[in-house]
Amino acid sequence: MADFAPTPPVSQTSVDKPSYTSRQARLLAGLAGAGLDAIALNPGPSLNYLTGLTFHLMERPVVAFFIPNAPPVLVLPELETAKLKNLPYPVQPFPYGEDPGTWLGFFQHAALAAGLENKAVGVEPTRLRFLELRLLESAASEARFVSAEESLAALRMCKDPDEIAAMRKAVDIAQRALHAIRPIIRPDITERHLASELTLELLRAGSDNEFPFTPIVSGGPNSANPHASPSDRPLRAGDLLVIDWGASYHGYISDLTRTFAISPVEDEFAHLARVVEEANAAGRAAARPKNTADQVDAAARSVITQAGYGEFFTHRTGHGIGMEGHEAPYIRAGSDLILQPGMTFTIEPGIYLPGRNGVRIEDNVVITQDGAEVLSDLPRELQVIV
Amino acid sequence: MADFAPTPPVSQTSVDKPSYTSRQARLLAGLAGAGLDAIALNPGPSLNYLTGLTFHLMERPVVAFFIPNAPPVLVLPELETAKLKNLPYPVQPFPYGEDPGTWLGFFQHAALAAGLENKAVGVEPTRLRFLELRLLESAASEARFVSAEESLAALRMCKDPDEIAAMRKAVDIAQRALHAIRPIIRPDITERHLASELTLELLRAGSDNEFPFTPIVSGGPNSANPHASPSDRPLRAGDLLVIDWGASYHGYISDLTRTFAISPVEDEFAHLARVVEEANAAGRAAARPKNTADQVDAAARSVITQAGYGEFFTHRTGHGIGMEGHEAPYIRAGSDLILQPGMTFTIEPGIYLPGRNGVRIEDNVVITQDGAEVLSDLPRELQVIV
Repeated sequence: MADFAPTPPVSQTSVDKPSYTSRQARLLAGLAGAGLDAIALNPGPSLNYLTGLTFHLMERPVVAFFIPNAPPVLVLPELETAKLKNLPYPVQPFPYGEDPGTWLGFFQHAALAAGLENKAVGVEPTRLRFLELRLLESAASEARFVSAEESLAALRMCKDPDEIAAMRKAVDIAQRALHAIRPIIRPDITERHLASELTLELLRAGSDNEFPFTPIVSGGPNSANPHASPSDRPLRAGDLLVIDWGASYHGYISDLTRTFAISPVEDEFAHLARVVEEANAAGRAAARPKNTADQVDAAARSVITQAGYGEFFTHRTGHGIGMEGHEAPYIRAGSDLILQPGMTFTIEPGIYLPGRNGVRIEDNVVITQDGAEVLSDLPRELQVIV
Repeated sequence: MADFAPTPPVSQTSVDKPSYTSRQARLLAGLAGAGLDAIALNPGPSLNYLTGLTFHLMERPVVAFFIPNAPPVLVLPELETAKLKNLPYPVQPFPYGEDPGTWLGFFQHAALAAGLENKAVGVEPTRLRFLELRLLESAASEARFVSAEESLAALRMCKDPDEIAAMRKAVDIAQRALHAIRPIIRPDITERHLASELTLELLRAGSDNEFPFTPIVSGGPNSANPHASPSDRPLRAGDLLVIDWGASYHGYISDLTRTFAISPVEDEFAHLARVVEEANAAGRAAARPKNTADQVDAAARSVITQAGYGEFFTHRTGHGIGMEGHEAPYIRAGSDLILQPGMTFTIEPGIYLPGRNGVRIEDNVVITQDGAEVLSDLPRELQVIV
């Protein structure tokens, strides 16, 4: 217990908690422009952002309807209704029991209360499931269910100072955790062991228990797989080692990557690391208001392409972060999204030589009035373990 | 690092890894009887069970099609294709790039390769999302997408000896973690702090980094909310304390609950705990082959009802566990599901007095040839902290 760092609350510049009613009003104000009449959300970051509510999402469906000029309508299990006590805004709850055969009836009553019939109802494509969609379609058979991806991205994409403060803390926690495991990175330790130790240190440094993702710890040939899962392979001389990890603090996350090497390092791999470091710097330099996401991607990518490794940079340069590990804005070729102050995203160029080794260097940035603040400051150069 | 317990592999009674091809064959053999022509899965336990494959499921869709007489068809991001190397069975991959505008084309080609047009395609209602469903509906506009919940439950519901061995280990890890935090349960420690320490100990005891769920640690009035999130409330004299936690081992999980009390304990609360302990015992005694899920629920529930607290036992008696925190079979009133050897589930009666205190006692059982083996053996009586 002595090694547990208490996590003080994020300083609140607003009077109290986030103003859920003002966030709900902002969502609803944008509906007409998006051709939508209502929004139906199941549990996840968007619902949490709008209501402060979290639910275990498994086999019991939970859906909240946001509609103009009336309190949100909420279908939920009876055993979750204690969460509605003392909410700072009104809701219209429709709690159901444990027999799935009765659930549709509750959805029908809720859809009626929300006036969904014949309406265009926006949903979150990466969250709403077949389970809830079929219940909604049966409960409001004349409603149209369409993607509200852009409305929800617009709602959450620019972070307020409290959100950025939480992300700054999440970066700090992650960096301290990596520092703590630095001494045990050495030949013969397995990826899985290193990943477990890193997770322990994230908790010790004050991360929320709900991690944004489990760390990627991948050595040698595994490092050439950008989304590898930690394996029982031990580190060996000549390996590159990619560690991609993050913390969560009050629901806001960090997502960083650094690359290490186990001595001796082949010249080509040391060169790869320098190229990626330069690409990362170029991406960070291009991150400023009025540039497009495409321009940031191009700045990083051109360094790698000019070095002759373009075909081995197999993913986009970055993605938004905040309450989710991946969210808008996506930093990819062809995106004409214009960067604005408050947007927070990763810059993470990489080069992956299949069957051999990979390098990735990832930082977290927030767009400011005249450029970008880089939240992460761990050394970016290849760190060679001798 | 010294406190890290290495996790040896689960003993394999089969020749090698789980036989993915035989699992796929078993799924396909049951399709016709379920009125299905194919199964479309996105990442999750069912896909992992059938293929061994895991993916980060965020904004990039991944869907695998299982069809008779041909290898599985897989739509996935290019950057995930390294995972297809060295698979012990063939697949037909359709890898796409980073521009979402191109994804539908890949789904169309995959749907054609899988011959989905005019077919009944089963999906997993709690996993498949609006994102994938709309791509599937556009790619195969004459196909019907329906729930394959029962087919997938039938596939995975009875565990083999290797699966049960992994669950036994997950229970052991969870029990050792709770034992380790026992000394710090005392007045003034917050729920959140206790939850973090428990998470640390789960990792030290050898849990996978991917937890089945984050621990519920809820004291006093919070313990009356079955799905409470750990808060900053400190434990106080007179509180009951519900701890609901679990470990993961090689992808298989445990899910336990014990209730503590901070002295002095009101007589009524001590009585509640005895009633729930008796209900838990009655549920375990009713868990045997040929009994229905309803009979197990009724056995536990009747104890609580007869004690006069029926209205405060607000949830079903249990749920299946295995690769998921909640899966079939669900142990609820009205379920005529017949228990069979190899089924694994929780027995977790509870009483929740709103605004006051709650009790829950949860064990994990596996149905055997002539009864049930209880995997968990921590003391069940109320443990009073003085």
